[in-house]
Amino acid sequence: MDDLDPSPLQSSSATVHRDERGALTLVSAADIPFRPGRIYVLHGMPVGARRGGHASRGQRRLLVWISGASTVLVIDGLRLDDLLRLHAGETLLIEPGVWFEIEIATADTQILVFAEGEYEPDDYVRDRTALPVARLSASHTEPV
Amino acid sequence: MDDLDPSPLQSSSATVHRDERGALTLVSAADIPFRPGRIYVLHGMPVGARRGGHASRGQRRLLVWISGASTVLVIDGLRLDDLLRLHAGETLLIEPGVWFEIEIATADTQILVFAEGEYEPDDYVRDRTALPVARLSASHTEPV
Repeated sequence: MDDLDPSPLQSSSATVHRDERGALTLVSAADIPFRPGRIYVLHGMPVGARRGGHASRGQRRLLVWISGASTVLVIDGLRLDDLLRLHAGETLLIEPGVWFEIEIATADTQILVFAEGEYEPDDYVRDRTALPVARLSASHTEPV
Repeated sequence: MDDLDPSPLQSSSATVHRDERGALTLVSAADIPFRPGRIYVLHGMPVGARRGGHASRGQRRLLVWISGASTVLVIDGLRLDDLLRLHAGETLLIEPGVWFEIEIATADTQILVFAEGEYEPDDYVRDRTALPVARLSASHTEPV
């Protein structure tokens, strides 16, 4: 039963191909469980820098670690409160309502992020003490 | 008139946001002129490494330089024969039928690539002396 799932986090898959020409980290669009509206790469981050620090009301995010390592705090205010360690080649799916914050552990850390939909300031919930947050119904409505 | 366009290359836009937490290089899906089937990051490449070295019969590619710099040779066997220099924040759209090869100029080079469709070995044309190549009609058919 879905509602006994202990965690709203799911992992997807990235494939890393390495040869003498370097590395290629690949994600198939078919493995992304939503239609990305924005795609971005976080890079050039000093050790100890923090990214994220918010939940989304309606947009999922898929994070793909290209290189380096990070500690990620994830909280939903209900049953989830976890501290994860993510490394190159690993991925993290952040569901709506899940507050997350990434702390950069190595200077070579680069993270590819797929975010659902366009940028919407009202979609962000930055105060983690405000969890759990109401989720926008739009992202959970079945297509008609 | 489109058929007098001297180049099948077009540039799209990436936005780079920098602050004390590092850099975020963003592409909006709305600015990608096709539906990406694969998304990958080229990284960890030694100076002088070469990537690409093929044309596609039917798939477009959008390349986004996240960091570093590269020299890109582009040839279509018809009217295009160019040597470009691409840097962080710049993008390059490769149309079907355009052979391209990237030479990595700096060790920090990272390139985000959006490729149209799934991986299809038959879509690749690796011999640049075989240009111009027949393009698959599928990608040029108007939707019905």
